[in-house]
Amino acid sequence: MDEATQGRTARVLIHDPTLRDGHHAVRHQLEAAQLRDYAAAADAAGLPVVEVGHGNGLGASSLQIGRARLSDTAMLAAVREALTRSRLGVFMAPGWGTAADLRGAITLGADVVRIAVHCTEADVTERHLGVVRDLGAEAHGVLLMSHMASPDQLAEQCGLLTELGAQAVGIFDSAGYYLPSDVATRIEAIAAAVDVPVIFHGHNNLGLAVANSIAAVQAGAQIIDATARGFGAGAGNTQLEVLVAVLERMGYSTGIDLRRLLNAADIAEERLMKAPPVIDSVSLVSGLAGVFSGFKKPVLDAARCEGIDPVDLFLALGERQVVAGQEDLIGDVAQKLKEA
Amino acid sequence: MDEATQGRTARVLIHDPTLRDGHHAVRHQLEAAQLRDYAAAADAAGLPVVEVGHGNGLGASSLQIGRARLSDTAMLAAVREALTRSRLGVFMAPGWGTAADLRGAITLGADVVRIAVHCTEADVTERHLGVVRDLGAEAHGVLLMSHMASPDQLAEQCGLLTELGAQAVGIFDSAGYYLPSDVATRIEAIAAAVDVPVIFHGHNNLGLAVANSIAAVQAGAQIIDATARGFGAGAGNTQLEVLVAVLERMGYSTGIDLRRLLNAADIAEERLMKAPPVIDSVSLVSGLAGVFSGFKKPVLDAARCEGIDPVDLFLALGERQVVAGQEDLIGDVAQKLKEA
Repeated sequence: MDEATQGRTARVLIHDPTLRDGHHAVRHQLEAAQLRDYAAAADAAGLPVVEVGHGNGLGASSLQIGRARLSDTAMLAAVREALTRSRLGVFMAPGWGTAADLRGAITLGADVVRIAVHCTEADVTERHLGVVRDLGAEAHGVLLMSHMASPDQLAEQCGLLTELGAQAVGIFDSAGYYLPSDVATRIEAIAAAVDVPVIFHGHNNLGLAVANSIAAVQAGAQIIDATARGFGAGAGNTQLEVLVAVLERMGYSTGIDLRRLLNAADIAEERLMKAPPVIDSVSLVSGLAGVFSGFKKPVLDAARCEGIDPVDLFLALGERQVVAGQEDLIGDVAQKLKEA
Repeated sequence: MDEATQGRTARVLIHDPTLRDGHHAVRHQLEAAQLRDYAAAADAAGLPVVEVGHGNGLGASSLQIGRARLSDTAMLAAVREALTRSRLGVFMAPGWGTAADLRGAITLGADVVRIAVHCTEADVTERHLGVVRDLGAEAHGVLLMSHMASPDQLAEQCGLLTELGAQAVGIFDSAGYYLPSDVATRIEAIAAAVDVPVIFHGHNNLGLAVANSIAAVQAGAQIIDATARGFGAGAGNTQLEVLVAVLERMGYSTGIDLRRLLNAADIAEERLMKAPPVIDSVSLVSGLAGVFSGFKKPVLDAARCEGIDPVDLFLALGERQVVAGQEDLIGDVAQKLKEA
């Protein structure tokens, strides 16, 4: 393409959380054979990092958030066994996971560890980033629900993550709220503030996950998250095979074999999911309102229970700026909406 | 959104071909009640134009292309009856449709008539644009498979369409091939060459239909096509309700009630389609190769028959720049690939 040569020679590292973030879409119920099959196909395609785990990360399997079919240990062992070239990734949110979970995962062969916190709470990562570095794994620090902070705040928080030991830092569009211009502004601010690779993780609630990921790369991000067929909660994530095809056409290099990646995506569709994600009306409103995608099920339940429109409930939750962990608020807000 | 105010006050006219282009996805088998239900919901949402017909337009129902369940007359009557505010649109490709079809449609109440031709054949629209103008309907001229022509060629062809009577002109990304930069360049060239509103019609093979439509608006397009849940062949069209939500958030005005539009989209999902479109591996490759989305089924059939990979067949067809109407070539190319 003559008018799309911005990326020529630039390298983009694709980080694949199909078996972790996708896990939300099937309530963390994947079996070892499913994990192995997809991981082997992703490995054959040359994916740099294959991440696995409960959707909420190490240590998160619980009655409240949802029990995974397999233990963290069993999931890591299954994927570790299937990988020959790809590095093994894990995700951990302090509060759900602990330093002991990190040690266990790294002992089992995790190469890349994401420590994830709410977008204004970088300071709580100190201990965990330290553990990861001490054990010799690659430490990433990522900020969730990042649309709730300004570009300057995000740059400052990412700077703090690097001071605490993160070797790559970045932002998650957990609600699928961003427009490409939003992403560009934030990634530019972060890239100007840190000397490590910058990460972007998108969701597709506004149909813009691929465009937002391209905007991130053009603004200086070097690590982009994407999942096969967009496997993920609600409207899903950035669609991996589509993103790779578009980046390569624009002249960026991912090191991934597209034909083999299509095979991995076909395996993901056949073996991991009932159907690929769709942007339904509820997911669209959830993105517009800036509410965490994982709230979809409890919001629909509460709306049905109170006999209110889930669209109103999403908008009210968006106004209150609820974040993951505040699921208890959903019922209260629903009740107030009914009374109003 | 502070950084997305480019569109404030600008008006975008959304043209909805859910019941025409979406028809491809169900082999033109929608029933009158389905047409009426969706049209009534779209009308209630304030859609400016609701288009209906066989996927290939007026007069196209045939053994070769596929017979529609209903006649053009029955489809138009069903939708006409359901509309109170929205204007009724039809689509006609000379060769499949005739002047008699146009007269029939306008007599039945079609307000907006699209005359569609391959991107380098604007000159064949003369007679049909004339008929539409003579009968007092609004005449649009649109160029299919537009990625096969340069921005300058498209501008010239669109200029010719206006000379022949088109009151709005534009381009279809029939193969879902464009990146946003491709769209911007082409729409800018066309907008600079004509004095009538410019049309953009996208497909989602590269996951960029919404982003491409935004790029079109920012480059000067005023009429954007989009379908409920992206209903359409292969990877589908630009998703209507998502596009409207994004445009409104960016400050553009569509005059559409989003809540009612979500209702229309829900009705479309429940009543019109088995499942919303997905970007599967074949649709992705089809877009990358720049092959008409409508070729998906015959390409898969020919690949299976010859025992070759459909990805190779799509790429070979893309190299040969095949266009709609050249379905006969698919078997020949498949056979040659097998021999090679």
